[in-house]
Amino acid sequence: MVNWKNLDQLDAFKELESLDKVCLPCAMAGENGAERVKKYCIPMAQGLFFNYGAKAVDDDILASLAKLADEAEVLDKFAELYNGAVVNTGEKRLVLHQLCRGQLGRDVMADGVNKREFYVKQQERIAAFAKKVHEGEIVNADGEKFTTVVQIGIGGSDLGPRAIYIALENWARKNDTLKMEAKFISNVDPDDAAAVLNSIDVAHSLFVLVSKSGTTLETLTNEAFVKNALAEAGLDASKHMVAVTSETSPLAKNEGYLDAFFMDDYIGGRYSSSSAVGGCVLSLAFGPEVFAQFLDGAAACDKLCLEKDPLKNAALLDALIGVYERNVLGMSNTAVLPYSQALSRFPAHLQQLDMESNGKSVNRFGEPVDYPTGPIIFGEPGTNGQHSFYQLLHQGKTIVPLQFIGFKNSQIGTDVVIEGSTSQQKLSANVAAQIVAFATGKDDANLNKKFDGGRPSSIIIGEQLTPASLGALLAHFENKVMFQGFLWNVNSFDQEGVQLGKVLAKKVLAHDTDGALAIYSDLLGI
Amino acid sequence: MVNWKNLDQLDAFKELESLDKVCLPCAMAGENGAERVKKYCIPMAQGLFFNYGAKAVDDDILASLAKLADEAEVLDKFAELYNGAVVNTGEKRLVLHQLCRGQLGRDVMADGVNKREFYVKQQERIAAFAKKVHEGEIVNADGEKFTTVVQIGIGGSDLGPRAIYIALENWARKNDTLKMEAKFISNVDPDDAAAVLNSIDVAHSLFVLVSKSGTTLETLTNEAFVKNALAEAGLDASKHMVAVTSETSPLAKNEGYLDAFFMDDYIGGRYSSSSAVGGCVLSLAFGPEVFAQFLDGAAACDKLCLEKDPLKNAALLDALIGVYERNVLGMSNTAVLPYSQALSRFPAHLQQLDMESNGKSVNRFGEPVDYPTGPIIFGEPGTNGQHSFYQLLHQGKTIVPLQFIGFKNSQIGTDVVIEGSTSQQKLSANVAAQIVAFATGKDDANLNKKFDGGRPSSIIIGEQLTPASLGALLAHFENKVMFQGFLWNVNSFDQEGVQLGKVLAKKVLAHDTDGALAIYSDLLGI
Repeated sequence: MVNWKNLDQLDAFKELESLDKVCLPCAMAGENGAERVKKYCIPMAQGLFFNYGAKAVDDDILASLAKLADEAEVLDKFAELYNGAVVNTGEKRLVLHQLCRGQLGRDVMADGVNKREFYVKQQERIAAFAKKVHEGEIVNADGEKFTTVVQIGIGGSDLGPRAIYIALENWARKNDTLKMEAKFISNVDPDDAAAVLNSIDVAHSLFVLVSKSGTTLETLTNEAFVKNALAEAGLDASKHMVAVTSETSPLAKNEGYLDAFFMDDYIGGRYSSSSAVGGCVLSLAFGPEVFAQFLDGAAACDKLCLEKDPLKNAALLDALIGVYERNVLGMSNTAVLPYSQALSRFPAHLQQLDMESNGKSVNRFGEPVDYPTGPIIFGEPGTNGQHSFYQLLHQGKTIVPLQFIGFKNSQIGTDVVIEGSTSQQKLSANVAAQIVAFATGKDDANLNKKFDGGRPSSIIIGEQLTPASLGALLAHFENKVMFQGFLWNVNSFDQEGVQLGKVLAKKVLAHDTDGALAIYSDLLGI
Repeated sequence: MVNWKNLDQLDAFKELESLDKVCLPCAMAGENGAERVKKYCIPMAQGLFFNYGAKAVDDDILASLAKLADEAEVLDKFAELYNGAVVNTGEKRLVLHQLCRGQLGRDVMADGVNKREFYVKQQERIAAFAKKVHEGEIVNADGEKFTTVVQIGIGGSDLGPRAIYIALENWARKNDTLKMEAKFISNVDPDDAAAVLNSIDVAHSLFVLVSKSGTTLETLTNEAFVKNALAEAGLDASKHMVAVTSETSPLAKNEGYLDAFFMDDYIGGRYSSSSAVGGCVLSLAFGPEVFAQFLDGAAACDKLCLEKDPLKNAALLDALIGVYERNVLGMSNTAVLPYSQALSRFPAHLQQLDMESNGKSVNRFGEPVDYPTGPIIFGEPGTNGQHSFYQLLHQGKTIVPLQFIGFKNSQIGTDVVIEGSTSQQKLSANVAAQIVAFATGKDDANLNKKFDGGRPSSIIIGEQLTPASLGALLAHFENKVMFQGFLWNVNSFDQEGVQLGKVLAKKVLAHDTDGALAIYSDLLGI
């Protein structure tokens, strides 16, 4: 049995706190800096690598972080997870999202079935369905092919799949594998569904309704919205809609849908991109082969997380450095800065993944913890962010650790040479420049033009953003967040913090309010 | 002459620090809570109002904040600004963005002209140009109307105009005033321009090149990208492109453009939505009358900022409470949470506006300040955010002040009744519920289900998101940020923090690197 201890009970953590801090501008200067950047670099899956040369660590701190990982038994905890232990203690559930893309340990049996086989079967069913749609076997009432797929879901049923679709849309166009355009309806704001419906040809649209329980308010409301639109167009909704849900939900085996594909309670929404939640819409949009490449990339990344040496395990080391920044250096944010327009919504997905997983104040036993847990995550693609919030990152009073992502090649490949360099070279030059500027700073007699430096960053670099490298990237962050949860001793797989708002919203809608809530309801005209 | 003092030199600030803190869950409970919400409410322009019932303030703290505003002479500083003083001390420039939408003080003369007249003249020139485009007087080579307008710009030339376009696109469709669809190219990532160009019909597209200096690297690179695409389509770029720039830039009076509209050095990029930077693309997209309504809304909000009583001046009070949260309560973030899908990119604009303005470590005289300045801003629309990062906001270890925005009515007006309520009612019910949940929390014997509350929030509520109310909303935040800059005694109008990265990126592109920068360049394949 592994030992689930709070971070501040670990000897290695006390040691870590006692170590000298790194002067990043000093460490990154001159040839020493060059050596650091060469040395502090770990290969990841799919040609990606994790470079942490500009993080505020040195060999002593790294050795102490490795001890922390060992003492916290994070790899044993990971083994418990992938071997099917009830790691989600709050909800008493297994945690099996990795099983959608591979099997790291023994067979996991639950609900009387082998879960790996269950997830693979759903993938196969989705692939077969998607092929029928693409090949014109499943068609609309006029016998015409569906051209658009619309995902109806919120939270994890929206952010991950949407970020992945946006990340791969141009790649798929370029590689001639964009089978259907995808759209997403998520918000209960009626203008969200109305605007999407106004922008598509409903007669050629297939809708994917995603709700594990089959009871998510926003999603069912938007389903009704869509069904109205289909009815107004004289169409039979049951011929335009599939469900992604659990086998026990009211949406399963329901004649209102063309078909239903299944997920289960062992995959949390924010970890569900690899499951049918991502699989259905992405297989329809790009073809099942492309989704399979994405899963393979994720599986390869998962496998690397088995590496016993924390200093060779990218996701684990990324997690450890983040804990050092949060709990020793006292930094409460992390900015995710992909130098790739295709990753424009990837930070929004990571925001959910990280903040919903580790934004907790109690440990896995429900006892309050006395140390900071998950950070606040935000970010926008570079170079756009440089012309926006980087001012504060460079010269503000609060230091924000930075997570850069960059690729050597663009996806579309169309480029232009201006002043002797391509746009892709300018993009890459900017991210290199920013890392060094943030770390080393620059002195100036005019203090308004002085940069203190000392802003720590890491970068993940890849050849190109492809389905496989995106899968690896996504799995890296899922595993990083999981490892951090182990270190903080929190349950990264529940989300009790979203409940109170739901309960109070129901009261408002039932006009069962008093006090402040009644006044806000009045002010908002409810 | 006003007195420019650091925040920590003000007696009222010391008083503020000494006051008892508010127990928000106590204050917001029962009928007292209801009274607070009724009382702590200020009307704004265009039917908006600012409710701060759920902020961690009480009458004593508010009185002290009012003293702080008086002692810091913020309204006198505002008067200096709108009367044309050199408030941007670092760059030795006037600050005149409010003059694009009205005149609050005396005539401001600069560069030998009356600046209000100059800005109005540009608006009139843009309106005349837009009308010619809409009426088919200015057409493409085949004599056909332009159907799409594409803004090429980055930072303030992108985020504000894009957020406004997205905010009003559905309103304009509904009100039959969408004249042209707008697209935006910003990132130097070649995939950004390539994807936009792939998505439009260039033969019917008009491009608006926006660069004050006429030298912004990203923008000129993307211009070349677009010109290549036009050339490949056999089109004359000079018949498809207008410039928005300063009168002295190389883009002004240039035969490469159909026309040029002017801005100047007295309007910073992040404050330029009201100038030709926003005016050109938005007048083309929606018609100049709609842009005029937007300006009128902003002007009305500016006028309310003249209110001498800080407790009746919404932008000023919002600013003061933010300073209290940052400098007394020690909170380093603010989340902007619009319950309106149309405002999906408004948080990204505010992120630039706020973080680039006040993310500073020196005061306006270039002396280091010893207190926190501008916070980190992030946000996503509700209810989406509820299913994403709200977990951390409710139960995380770091308290994040919240800025909600809500409207009583949707823009499109299509809605559906499910379980007795419309989607719009559900949306509004959720924001009311969240405010109360964040403030009051809920006890539970299971600490994992306990909510401590004490998360402060304010809300701006309006009837509907229209051009005029959006103008008022934008101006509110511009003025809030300005007032906060006065209180922190920083120059909110320069951005020296963006320079070092630019310098280093040029070195990389010139292969003039050594040390760490050389290694990063290698790793990125430059």
